[in-house]
Amino acid sequence: MGYAQLMEAMGQVNDLLNTQSILNWDARTMMPEGGHETRGKQLATLSVLTRDLLVSAETRRRLDAAEAEVANFADGSVEKVMVAQVREAIDYHLAIPADLTRRRAELGSLGHAVWAKARAESDFKQFAPILEQTVALNREMAEAIGYSEHPYDALMYRFEPGETVATLKPLFNRLREGLQPLVKAIGEKQQPRFDFLERHYPVEKQHAFALAMAQKVGYDLHRGRLDTTLHPFEVSFTRNDVRITTRFNPNYMAASLFGALHEAGHGLYEQGVDPAYTRTPFATDLVGLYAVGGVSFGAHESQSRLWENHVGRSREFWQVNFAEAQNFYPEQLADVTAEEFFRAVNRCKPGFIRVEADELTYDFHVMLRTDIEAALIDGSLAVKDLPEAWNAKIKEYLGLDVPNDAQGVLQDVHWSSGQIGTFCNYTIGNVMAGQLFETAKQDGNIADGLARGDYEPLRLFMVENIHQHGRRYGRDELLIKATGRRLDPEPYIAHLTSKYSELYGL
Amino acid sequence: MGYAQLMEAMGQVNDLLNTQSILNWDARTMMPEGGHETRGKQLATLSVLTRDLLVSAETRRRLDAAEAEVANFADGSVEKVMVAQVREAIDYHLAIPADLTRRRAELGSLGHAVWAKARAESDFKQFAPILEQTVALNREMAEAIGYSEHPYDALMYRFEPGETVATLKPLFNRLREGLQPLVKAIGEKQQPRFDFLERHYPVEKQHAFALAMAQKVGYDLHRGRLDTTLHPFEVSFTRNDVRITTRFNPNYMAASLFGALHEAGHGLYEQGVDPAYTRTPFATDLVGLYAVGGVSFGAHESQSRLWENHVGRSREFWQVNFAEAQNFYPEQLADVTAEEFFRAVNRCKPGFIRVEADELTYDFHVMLRTDIEAALIDGSLAVKDLPEAWNAKIKEYLGLDVPNDAQGVLQDVHWSSGQIGTFCNYTIGNVMAGQLFETAKQDGNIADGLARGDYEPLRLFMVENIHQHGRRYGRDELLIKATGRRLDPEPYIAHLTSKYSELYGL
Repeated sequence: MGYAQLMEAMGQVNDLLNTQSILNWDARTMMPEGGHETRGKQLATLSVLTRDLLVSAETRRRLDAAEAEVANFADGSVEKVMVAQVREAIDYHLAIPADLTRRRAELGSLGHAVWAKARAESDFKQFAPILEQTVALNREMAEAIGYSEHPYDALMYRFEPGETVATLKPLFNRLREGLQPLVKAIGEKQQPRFDFLERHYPVEKQHAFALAMAQKVGYDLHRGRLDTTLHPFEVSFTRNDVRITTRFNPNYMAASLFGALHEAGHGLYEQGVDPAYTRTPFATDLVGLYAVGGVSFGAHESQSRLWENHVGRSREFWQVNFAEAQNFYPEQLADVTAEEFFRAVNRCKPGFIRVEADELTYDFHVMLRTDIEAALIDGSLAVKDLPEAWNAKIKEYLGLDVPNDAQGVLQDVHWSSGQIGTFCNYTIGNVMAGQLFETAKQDGNIADGLARGDYEPLRLFMVENIHQHGRRYGRDELLIKATGRRLDPEPYIAHLTSKYSELYGL
Repeated sequence: MGYAQLMEAMGQVNDLLNTQSILNWDARTMMPEGGHETRGKQLATLSVLTRDLLVSAETRRRLDAAEAEVANFADGSVEKVMVAQVREAIDYHLAIPADLTRRRAELGSLGHAVWAKARAESDFKQFAPILEQTVALNREMAEAIGYSEHPYDALMYRFEPGETVATLKPLFNRLREGLQPLVKAIGEKQQPRFDFLERHYPVEKQHAFALAMAQKVGYDLHRGRLDTTLHPFEVSFTRNDVRITTRFNPNYMAASLFGALHEAGHGLYEQGVDPAYTRTPFATDLVGLYAVGGVSFGAHESQSRLWENHVGRSREFWQVNFAEAQNFYPEQLADVTAEEFFRAVNRCKPGFIRVEADELTYDFHVMLRTDIEAALIDGSLAVKDLPEAWNAKIKEYLGLDVPNDAQGVLQDVHWSSGQIGTFCNYTIGNVMAGQLFETAKQDGNIADGLARGDYEPLRLFMVENIHQHGRRYGRDELLIKATGRRLDPEPYIAHLTSKYSELYGL
């Protein structure tokens, strides 16, 4: 009975976390402005109750009973893994003093307004005191959670379990070594034609086209919907209600299109989780307290980047689908070829802003932030020296002189909410996408599908190897099953090298 | 400290109830079809946790301490009333065995599908066994809750506290006596011109016009929004986020217009509650477990009916606003006068369906149901005899022969969810609206405002006398403060008599 009772409690935890996701989705898409203050209180109440339910004496009693019940089950059995995950999460939460959680939440709600003003006035000094406190609190958090080598490892655990400063170092070195020559070489080359992406594209048409492309790669509208937000995102309330958003700029159609494909990639992951895992720990991040089926932030990002970049920005995709784009936009694309469209959406141009970065330069923004966060946490970089360190890295990686703090160190919202440790997953995702795509393409059926615009074989490969498993296996366990090896940057570097060499005649 | 701690717990209860409202709103407006099953589980979890939190040993400990703390406060003080309401609600919930709540919820989730099929096939016999169980369970519920005279009183308590079979009897008698002659007399009169309401009105235009009229009477869009549903409703997530919906029929514009005005009336009530009562029992129905600022279902209905009928269906309203209607619909209303429009939207035509009934015949549908429910509960009417009793009453009141069960006894969804006791509030609301409107109009400033299209004086009268108080005072307490007397049907009967006599030349 212990196991069944524990699963019942975990179902309730999952319900409460999904409820929070619904409230957050509503706040970002539908809520009138007046609702903010009390919505914050509703979310705070749910958050407290969820954590309390998870670590309650009653849940722990059930956990003890469940552990006894499954003690003789085979290692790796569903029941044994479920129970172990619950134990791990409860230990994690009990290790963090309630007072620390409270102080971080308070700082987080304070920090956003200070950051927003500092960014608006491009003045890092205004934000520095908040960041000092954020770093100090996260250091405390790291000590409470515990780590073997580097305190930053403890912070990454919540987002990318298993990843450490030590594992990231060789990965980042190899990426810099492989990609920096490409960035440098492109700097001197002529840029492709780009004008037609900046024509007038009515927002309703963009919505319909973005949705059509998302559905083409398999996003299921019976279990989803597409809405409009300033920053695109995906959120699921179980596999049967997985919503995405994108942003619409009437004078730049690529933003909505690739935003939707990216989020549809996330959405496919959630829609593909085994129905048997619904409302279980395999569809719940019990450490991060977030209802999600994806096993890590990096694994999730691998799916969004795969569909956005490896599929959506491929020549093959537009050879097949450009006619449909022209049907949607007969005037705007009248004088454009599929090849021109493909080249335009792959234009590489180093810039200051991470969220606007192209496929090739994106990882430099991520590596810069990850290295800086680790240095802030271990004390080797002081907050006051941060802008200088940031600007030096942008110069080193991208050859650009950062003109002000707003376009530099103040651009991201993350630190304003008290969050440190979540940047590396973007690059992990890119690397993992490259690795999975290389393996998938070796299947002739998948390769043929891509060539003729049938994305179902590729999607089913991802369902089979990644999606269906939810959070049952670790990220590297999945990668080894799917590709025969752990995280390996070579396929990703090879993909970018070949693609950009050809595009820019390097 | 007891009082402050109790209020903190009540804030959490309010947050959880508002959360349920958000999930329900989303399910009815935004959710993709796939989400239903797990949404039901999320709502069930929240519902259990909310009830558990309200009646928990910890909350009761706080309540005991709060009662001691406020014992010497003045009677009627905010603190004393708050504490008394919490005590009353906790006693109510503890009186109902958990097992009974569970059985009723199970029957409710079972009943809807059976009812829907029975209605589709117009076959009461299929639904009768469910209704038998519903009646039996509600009888059990009544016994658990307790009552002085009639078991139905115990069921009405949740929706219309203070109302009983004994208080309704003279009210209904007087209404029948006052209104039946009007219905009869109109039957022989010529109907007004009506054709133009059934022209083609594009849905987007209807949305914009309905919203414009809702805003005209004071509905605040910074704290609200209008969406589309099959059945219009209003729901609030605190006074600062109060949403309404309406339905759109492209060939009948009156449905969306008066649906929106009706729901905007509900919305004004919620938007007008004293901000100091946010997240307190004065904005929480702790008995019905529903986050709402209105003091009873009937009081709420008085506000919707007031703005829908007394304002929105008045000659004055269209004398001022018909030009704007023509701006929205220049072609559809080209050959129509304000007077013709006013007469068309007041057409009186007895029919079978409650939700389509006009202002004059509506109460007969309500009285019929209330009397039948009371008779089912006290056993004087058997379920098997229900269709016959129903049809006889429709013949008696409206002179119509019910052709089948779908248009008769099976038309309403209420019984399918296990709910009995909630019909009388529609008529209470009509009566109360008549009484409040009569008093308000005696203020020259309000009457002038109505004549020139300024609805702010009337709205402020309602804020002052009804809205701001939330659930602090009982319904009749409010009425006495506002109009000098308890619920009184005479102003309502006078309003209908004068209006319909003039419209139909009686």
